[in-house]
This record gives sequence, C-alpha cells and structure tokens, in this order.
Amino acid sequence: MIKTDILIIGAGPTGLFTVFEAGLLKLKCHLIDALPQPGGQCSEIYPKKPIYDIPAFPEILAGDLVGNLMAQIKPFEPGFTLGERAETLDRQEDGSYVVTTNKGTEHHAPVVVIAGGLGSFEPRKPPIDTIADFEDVGVSYMVKDPEVYRNKKVLIAGGGDSALDWAIFLANVAAEVTLVHRRNEFRGALDSVEKAAELAKLGKIKLVTEAQVTKLYGDAHLEAVLIKHNDAALGETYLEVDDFIPLFGLSPKLGPLGNWGLEIHKNAIKVNNAKDYQTNLPGVFAIGDVNTYEGKLKLILSGFHEAAVMCQYAYQIINPGKRYVMKYTTVGGVEGFDGTKKVAKKEVVQAIS
Amino acid sequence: MIKTDILIIGAGPTGLFTVFEAGLLKLKCHLIDALPQPGGQCSEIYPKKPIYDIPAFPEILAGDLVGNLMAQIKPFEPGFTLGERAETLDRQEDGSYVVTTNKGTEHHAPVVVIAGGLGSFEPRKPPIDTIADFEDVGVSYMVKDPEVYRNKKVLIAGGGDSALDWAIFLANVAAEVTLVHRRNEFRGALDSVEKAAELAKLGKIKLVTEAQVTKLYGDAHLEAVLIKHNDAALGETYLEVDDFIPLFGLSPKLGPLGNWGLEIHKNAIKVNNAKDYQTNLPGVFAIGDVNTYEGKLKLILSGFHEAAVMCQYAYQIINPGKRYVMKYTTVGGVEGFDGTKKVAKKEVVQAIS
Ligand SMILES: Cc1cc2nc3c(=O)[nH]c(=O)nc-3n(C[C@H](O)[C@H](O)[C@H](O)COP(=O)(O)OP(=O)(O)OC[C@H]3O[C@@H](n4cnc5c(N)ncnc54)[C@H](O)[C@@H]3O)c2cc1C
Ligand SMILES: Cc1cc2nc3c(=O)[nH]c(=O)nc-3n(C[C@H](O)[C@H](O)[C@H](O)COP(=O)(O)OP(=O)(O)OC[C@H]3O[C@@H](n4cnc5c(N)ncnc54)[C@H](O)[C@@H]3O)c2cc1C
Repeated sequence: MIKTDILIIGAGPTGLFTVFEAGLLKLKCHLIDALPQPGGQCSEIYPKKPIYDIPAFPEILAGDLVGNLMAQIKPFEPGFTLGERAETLDRQEDGSYVVTTNKGTEHHAPVVVIAGGLGSFEPRKPPIDTIADFEDVGVSYMVKDPEVYRNKKVLIAGGGDSALDWAIFLANVAAEVTLVHRRNEFRGALDSVEKAAELAKLGKIKLVTEAQVTKLYGDAHLEAVLIKHNDAALGETYLEVDDFIPLFGLSPKLGPLGNWGLEIHKNAIKVNNAKDYQTNLPGVFAIGDVNTYEGKLKLILSGFHEAAVMCQYAYQIINPGKRYVMKYTTVGGVEGFDGTKKVAKKEVVQAIS
Repeated sequence: MIKTDILIIGAGPTGLFTVFEAGLLKLKCHLIDALPQPGGQCSEIYPKKPIYDIPAFPEILAGDLVGNLMAQIKPFEPGFTLGERAETLDRQEDGSYVVTTNKGTEHHAPVVVIAGGLGSFEPRKPPIDTIADFEDVGVSYMVKDPEVYRNKKVLIAGGGDSALDWAIFLANVAAEVTLVHRRNEFRGALDSVEKAAELAKLGKIKLVTEAQVTKLYGDAHLEAVLIKHNDAALGETYLEVDDFIPLFGLSPKLGPLGNWGLEIHKNAIKVNNAKDYQTNLPGVFAIGDVNTYEGKLKLILSGFHEAAVMCQYAYQIINPGKRYVMKYTTVGGVEGFDGTKKVAKKEVVQAIS
C-alpha cells in the first residue's frame, strides 16, 4: 500500500504543479496516471507545439512546460504510479481514501485530488478480433519502456507523430522495425517525417504503406501478423514479429471516475469554486480541466491557481486545527524534502567608505 | 480624453497580464499607474530577488518576470499613463466610466479593471516643513526620466537600494551627485553597495553619512539645502543643488479607490469570485492583490487566473449578445494589434518514400 498526504489522480500540468504548492506546505504527494509519462495532454497530444498564453512565457513548447514543472517539483520528491488507471475510490472509516488501479496497486491518503483533465487517456484499438488475447503478450498501445524491445522484431502501426517518433527511436534499439500505415502519407512534425524518411532509405525502418494488420498469430505470445494491402493485386503479407504496437492515438475517457459518486456535469466534476474546489465527497478535490463551474476556462493557468487554493484547504484536513502562515517564496525560500534549500541572496548592510 | 476598451488601474503583474488575455479577445487596454514604471510590487520592492512559485519557472527574478510580461503583451500595444494616480471614477449615462488622475488626465472606457495591488505606491516624505512648496520644482520622490538631471547638481537621500541604484546611475548623467544618509551603513544588494563604494572612491558620488537634510532654500525653484550632521561637532553644511530626491521608499495606500463606492473589506475590494471578479459596481472588476474573497491568496498566479476569467465577462459587456468561441493559443495562434502573428509550425502531410 502506497501512503502519502495528497494522492493526485492525473499527472498533467495541474497535477504536477499541485506537488509544488503542497510541498510549500510540507505535504507529500503521489501521482497516478494512465499514461506512461507525466504531462497529460501537453506530453501526449502536442509536446512539440508552442503555447503562447502561459503567463510570462511569450512562447513555450508544451513539452518544455512539462520539463520545467518537473524541475520545479523535483525538490518535493513526488511518487509516481504511471501506466495505470485509477479504478476505484474507497472511503475509509476515518475519512481517508484508498484508491486502487486497474493493475491492483493500492494508494492510501487523507486527501485525494482529481486532476484528471479530459479523462484517462485510453488507446484507440485496431479492429482485430483476437487483439485482446495478445495484450501485454506482444501487443501494447503505448511504449512504457523502450528497452523491452531491444533486439526484438517490432511492428508499429499508425501514421501520426507517435508512430513516426517511436519508429525512429526504436530503429536503434530493436532488431527490426516495420512501420505499417493504411495511407501513403504520414502526418507529423516536418523533422519527424524527414527523419523517418531518411531511416527508411537506409533500410533501418521497413515501410509498408496502404496496408493494415488484419490477423494475429501466436500461442502464449504474439509470433506473427497478417498484413492486408489496399491494392488487391498485392494481396496479403505474413510477417514474423515479436511485438505489435498500434499507435492510433489515445483518447481521453472520464471512465471510472464517473462511478465514484461524484456530481458530474457534462463529463466534468462539479466543485465549489467559490471556496476550495472540493467535490461533493469530503476530502476529494477536483482541479484543472476535469472540474466545472460557472465561467470555467479549460486553460493551463486555471489549474495552477486552483491547485494553490486547494492545497490550503487540504492542509486544514491533514493538520486539523493547525494554523498555516503563508510566506512568500521570495521571503521564505523553498525547502525541498530532498534536503535542498533555495533562498534569495541576502541584502548586505555595510558602510561604503 | 484617452479612450480604450478596458481601462486597467495598476500596472503590476496582474494588470499587465490582463492586456494579454484581453488582446486574445481583440480588446484594447490602457493602464494607469502611480509609479513611473510598470511591474507594481515586483519592480518597486524586489526587482532583483528570485520568485520560486511562478508556475514552470523554478526560479525567476521579479524584474525578469515583469520583463517577460512586457514582451508577452507587446503585440497588443497597451497604452500607459505612468506616474499618475487614478483619483476619480465617474459613471456615465451609458454605463461606461471616466477615470481622471491626480494630474487631470482623463480616460474613458466601457470596462474598468482595478488591479491596484496593495494600493497606489506613495512616497514616504522626509519631515521638512516647506517640502511641499518645492515638489516638482526641485524635489521629486521618484525618478521618472533620468535625463531631467543631465548636467544638474543632484542630491539623493536614503540608504536602501533605490538611493544606491539611482546614485550609481546618475553619477554618469548629472554634473554632481551627492548621497546623504542618516546612518553610516547602507542596506542593499551586494553589487549595488560595492558599485556605489567604488564610485565614491573615484569621487563620482559625494558621500555624506550620519546626516540629514533639514532645510530647503530657493525662490521659484530649489537652490540649496541645509544638511545637519548627527555629530553636533560637525554642525551643519549648506549645499547648493538643483534637485533633491529623497528615496525613503514608497508605501502602498488604497487611497482614492476607497471613495469610489466600492464594497471594501480589510483594505481590499470585495468581488464575486464564484463568477467574474466583478465588484458591486457594474462593469468594474477587481483582480490580483487588490481584491478579497473567502480563501483569497495574494499570489501572482492568482491574479493571472482572475485576469483570464474576468476578460471573458468584459467581452460580454463590450460586445453584448456576441458569442466568443475560445480557441487555444496553440491552435489559433496570437494575432497582435501591431500586425504580428505568432502561430505553431504546421504539421506536414507527406509520403515518406
Ligand atoms: C492541441 C491542444 C492545444 C492546447 N493549447 C492550449 C493553450 O494554448 N493554452 C492552454 O492554456 N491550454 C491549451 N490546451 C489545453 C491544456 O493542454 C489543458 O488545459 C491542460 O493539459 C489541462 O491540464 P490537466 O492537468 O488539468 O489535465 P490533462 O493535461 O488532461 O492531464 C490529465 C491526466 O490525468 C490522467 N487521468 C485521468 N483520469 C485518470 C484515471 N482514472 N487514472 C489515471 N490517470 C487518469 C490522464 O491520463 C492525463 O494524463 C491545449 C490542448 C490541446 C489538446
Ligand atoms: C518582498 C515581496 C516578495 C514577494 N514574493 C512573492 C512570491 O514569491 N510569490 C508570489 O506569488 N508573490 C510574491 N509577492 C507578492 C506579489 O508581488 C504580489 O502578489 C503581486 O505584485 C500582486 O500583483 P498586482 O498586479 O495585483 O498588484 P501590485 O504588484 O501591487 O501592483 C499594483 C499597482 O497598482 C498601482 N495603483 C494602485 N492604486 C492606484 C491608483 N489609484 N492609481 C494609479 N496606480 C495605482 C500601484 O502603484 C501598483 O504599481 C511578494 C511581495 C513582496 C513585497
């Protein structure tokens, strides 16, 4: 059982910044995310695109925003349960909660913060009858640890950035990388498309376009696939592979959160925005894109403010009766749980001559 | 009469970021500030100190934060009335407002946003009987335009950063710079103290410590001052000067805002934080440090969120009945009023081989 002060569901920008605000109040955080990496929409959907409305950044790439947030929260040593979906929420007798993931990992905390954005990112799956039988034994919809594919024969399917970027990355890791796409054209950042083209020319990525996987073969583990070409004249190709990674995009689904007894309005969780961003369940807060109230803006800067306000109330729950006196970071510095301390340079008081 | 869409009182971080959020909605802004420079507390009180809790900046100097905000809002060409205090607010028949400053400058807008922080920064004045007679004719409490002092004999009083930094700066502009301080020790950033010491050694700053100005002489304009030494044995010094700049710090005063019919609670303006951050006066909003509501945090990141939410409602007032469809900046780009356009690099759609 993982124990923490604040359990955060969702490691998007809102969840990440919560770690910082909680840390200033000496509260420890643990995050759960269905994705294999932190950053939420910013990492999954548009890591290489610029955002222009983050305050004091005339321009910042979404991926760099996540990188900066990770650096900012590092001193507060957040824990992570990645690649798992928070499935159930169970209120304990003392008012605390246990959250269990789809893989059975249990987490216990007095305060739960749902920063789930548009929902848990779930993969779009190709329509192959037996695909469920091969999940985790040869078929994955996301790359958690690229080392798993070292010296393997890997087949990637898809025509977007993820398919391109993982094909490029695994070209240097796997024994063989094949990229199959049902169209001839790929859609992605110019440099990804160009790099993939270069590797294809060098034979480091085998390209199969205007085709799709229709059958999977194997016993305990995937052994081969059947690829059907759009052009009937080309027929079908039988290909031996160890791993098949369909990357057709992930789409967010509110999912299990919908069954936790939370008040839901238009796929989002109702909160008390006049005060603490608490939901109808005591000790359960909802911040960022996942919540709703009159005038709500689904913007990154909104989640930042909501996190700061919410943490003050979480403090009250965790330290009942204790008074917290806010100090500006400039004045009080930042003391990490890792022993680091950032502090402004002191002024000097001295005679000049 | 200056006309604009949104008139912002206070050019601190909150007021500045409002220009950006308004600009995304194609609304023009004009700012009034009592200080000669934008940035509010960040510029006036701690420009060289690091802030650690601006989201996605593990560390940023307060002065750099202001610089970044100025760069971010540049495309939206804000107007500025600096060094003037907003004195009166007059509601017009059509519901719009006229705001007049202590210098008589008039501003007209359908929406007024008070981002006045802790109040208008007002100088602490030295206790010299006749000082009011010399204000603006030899005595100033802040430096608006250093060029005014070119080739003049200038006397600066004070022992903190402002006094040190302006003495250093004017050493290369004025004919003569004298720095008088009632103690022997100065309090400031190490490099300011060291630089001032160096200039004092070179004779470019004349130092008079453990002393203070007690009398002013002159007819239409300041001509000389009397400096009294703490050590009675040293008596008094008569010094001919063109300008006397007492820099004893500025302290914020809610001031005139208190008489505008706004609901005030503990020196701050009550707003509807459950919705739009509007005050009890229709079309008048209050955001940032200047407002109050249950759970209010006087943090920079709060003002940013409040600005974004408030602008959506200002849009409704300025464009009644029109519907605004929010677009992410990443998707829609940022179109400045100055003709500039920032936009994400397009994805390409192309065949690889
Ligand atoms: C193309 C695009 C451009 C954008 N441009 C801008 C812009 O310019 N400016 C701006 O402010 N915003 C922009 N946004 C919106 C911005 O990305 C979101 O507001 C922001 O990501 C919300 O952050 P969050 O942390 O609240 O949620 P998210 O980023 O959505 O993260 C939520 C995380 O929670 C996880 N999760 C949810 N439920 C569960 C569960 N049950 N178990 C485990 N994990 C779960 C999800 O997997 C996800 O990783 C843009 C969005 C897109 C798609
Ligand atoms: C030493 C110090 C350290 C701090 N550290 C942090 C930190 O680490 N993190 C953090 O988030 N915050 C910190 N703060 C607080 C932060 O600076 C404020 O929250 C922020 O400046 C508020 O911004 P604002 O724009 O709302 O108001 P302000 O910055 O106060 O600006 C308001 C402006 O309005 C002007 N004004 C007011 N009334 C009038 C009028 N009638 N006419 C004309 N002009 C008027 C004032 O002159 C002023 O320039 C710190 C503050 C101090 C003093």
